[in-house]
Amino acid sequence: MSGRPTARDFERWRESDRVARPARLERLRERMEREGVDAYFGVRRENTRYLTGFELAEGEEKSAGNSGQFFVSADEVVVLADSRYLAQAADDCPSARIERVYHDFADRWPALLGSLRPLNGGGGNGAVRKVAVEAGFVSHASWSRLAAASGDVELVPAEGWVEEARATKEPAEIERVAAACAVADAALERLLPRIVPGVTEAELAIQLEWDIRTSGAEALAFDVACLSGPRAALPHGKPGDRAVSAGEVLLFDFGAQVCGYRSDMTRTLFVGQPTDRDQQVYELVLRAQQAAIDAVAAAAQSGDRPPGRAVDTISRQVITDAGFGEHFGHGLGHGIGLATHELPSLTYSGSIDPLPGPTVFTIEPGVYLDGQTGVRIEDVVLFDPAARRFERLTGFPREMTVVG
Amino acid sequence: MSGRPTARDFERWRESDRVARPARLERLRERMEREGVDAYFGVRRENTRYLTGFELAEGEEKSAGNSGQFFVSADEVVVLADSRYLAQAADDCPSARIERVYHDFADRWPALLGSLRPLNGGGGNGAVRKVAVEAGFVSHASWSRLAAASGDVELVPAEGWVEEARATKEPAEIERVAAACAVADAALERLLPRIVPGVTEAELAIQLEWDIRTSGAEALAFDVACLSGPRAALPHGKPGDRAVSAGEVLLFDFGAQVCGYRSDMTRTLFVGQPTDRDQQVYELVLRAQQAAIDAVAAAAQSGDRPPGRAVDTISRQVITDAGFGEHFGHGLGHGIGLATHELPSLTYSGSIDPLPGPTVFTIEPGVYLDGQTGVRIEDVVLFDPAARRFERLTGFPREMTVVG
Repeated sequence: MSGRPTARDFERWRESDRVARPARLERLRERMEREGVDAYFGVRRENTRYLTGFELAEGEEKSAGNSGQFFVSADEVVVLADSRYLAQAADDCPSARIERVYHDFADRWPALLGSLRPLNGGGGNGAVRKVAVEAGFVSHASWSRLAAASGDVELVPAEGWVEEARATKEPAEIERVAAACAVADAALERLLPRIVPGVTEAELAIQLEWDIRTSGAEALAFDVACLSGPRAALPHGKPGDRAVSAGEVLLFDFGAQVCGYRSDMTRTLFVGQPTDRDQQVYELVLRAQQAAIDAVAAAAQSGDRPPGRAVDTISRQVITDAGFGEHFGHGLGHGIGLATHELPSLTYSGSIDPLPGPTVFTIEPGVYLDGQTGVRIEDVVLFDPAARRFERLTGFPREMTVVG
Repeated sequence: MSGRPTARDFERWRESDRVARPARLERLRERMEREGVDAYFGVRRENTRYLTGFELAEGEEKSAGNSGQFFVSADEVVVLADSRYLAQAADDCPSARIERVYHDFADRWPALLGSLRPLNGGGGNGAVRKVAVEAGFVSHASWSRLAAASGDVELVPAEGWVEEARATKEPAEIERVAAACAVADAALERLLPRIVPGVTEAELAIQLEWDIRTSGAEALAFDVACLSGPRAALPHGKPGDRAVSAGEVLLFDFGAQVCGYRSDMTRTLFVGQPTDRDQQVYELVLRAQQAAIDAVAAAAQSGDRPPGRAVDTISRQVITDAGFGEHFGHGLGHGIGLATHELPSLTYSGSIDPLPGPTVFTIEPGVYLDGQTGVRIEDVVLFDPAARRFERLTGFPREMTVVG
């Protein structure tokens, strides 16, 4: 998909989610059964949207109270909403039971648990005995209050149950990641004429953001990074008042969000004629990326699923062989979807489990020379070995691009 | 302050923070002593900046790992940073000890605790026995890992220790809230000519955001709310594709962030000639706001510190007397500073403790008629009874403003 997403696309995607949700819930219930819990209590924004349809913007969960938190029982999804969110909950979650909550959530907790039909038969009295709670996303203070209110019910810390399932993508999820990639591609293309010596990183970053947010994306995936010259070597840096200069690199790392799903791309451009050193570093990083792309494409063609760690190794070896191994200090890539960073993880210390499929992830090797220059090239790719399919979803050219 | 904040203002403010930090730490150590803990472990973004100087953008803590988390001991501040944040930590926190952390934080936890000089003498061996942890901002999963690694050291849940201190503001904090108010005032003023029938909520919201972020603010305080006609009655609503129409209200709720500190204002404008009903509701809300302002101003003049709850009651009574009490469903106001919502709280169910001083908070009564219209008027005010000083920091007129 390359055009601007339309209201009809959004409608269609939301409908796909509604159709897919029972299977997503079924997968969670299988996990709950294996883990021996009777109910699941979720609080993570992305999991809420995935399993219930209730939409919160990034960061909105901080001021939303309990709104969007949810239970999954043997036969129901229960979504919590305070008065501000009741209308939205009814709209977003037509097949869920909506429970209005106030500041008294811990007081209501026992009654809410009591209203759930337990998955594994529960205790002798047919009530929930064990409830899984997303322990990585509930504060310890909240956990303590719920535990104190739980009586005989045991809280079981759950981490990654939904996240592992989310790594495998449905067609309509992949479409949205592709749409977010296309919005980002087009925005960078339109920015190129504005990149001239003298313009500042911050000016370019906000211009790119504005373009993305007015051309079909509902939000950025994360704050735009725009780093020039030696600042491109910063593994973490915010766009500042530094002006772009001829003969330097200019690194953009950014993404769009379209109907909840995200893209993430990095391009390192050249302002005017590149130095020999910058050109060599660029070609090295491009070769390292190509090596990973070739390996993943070949695996997809033959229906194999290599571990993410093996893909990292292949790309890293190219950089190490050239003597720059110590200047590539991060992992090769990460899954992407409702969150910018999610499973699978493609890193040197990562899992040796085979990649899931179909899935989408980034391939983003980089070489950073402290105080001098930095180059990273990042694309999102689709990996679907069962369908013998591999595709680069990022469309922007990877060849050296000279601007200014 | 009414002009656009300059780089020199930012430099001066950061210097004020450096000068103020020892007294802030002293206040925390007094609390630690009262609570009988030997050390404090903080993770909340706002508390990090307040006590250490380390700056993270809103939401950045989600991807920053342990970077910015900190210990306060008897004689030190220790700031954690991973490789991405080491340079920043050294810059932002010249008087702290910086400890590089990796993904192995729980493994390093005992050694880090062991490196701290305990405030209350610690155990017999002079080591930390009890460490306070910001339990409302550490996930239960992290807490469990730290507790498992703590050996004989007891984790004590701490909530509100720093937040209560932050409610009292230093002069340079108040200056920044005022500067953020001025940026917001000016941006809304500049937006007025663009408000014409046919323009959408979303178009106006992004235009206002753009203006704020290019006229001296480093960020929004929160996403701009721009709601027209009956949508102004939504206690929570996102700007949408609804076009502004003559004869309707248009509610803006928004704020700026300047050198870390925030503003928050609401104005309900009229597009073309208001209906009699809308005009009556507006005048009622304005009277309710004025009643609260008069009460707070009088208290400041006489050096009194009423409870926030009493101020809410005074304003609410005006609305209740007019028969609209059930249509004002939220509290009157909240403190503001490094966070948009902080102490003190001015609500009907809130604390009966006297307001702190000097402090800054919002006064924002509203009346919402479901499916018809909504009016809220919100200003930030400075309350400083010791100096017999009261000031409205929001400068935008409160009188009915007709646009379009």
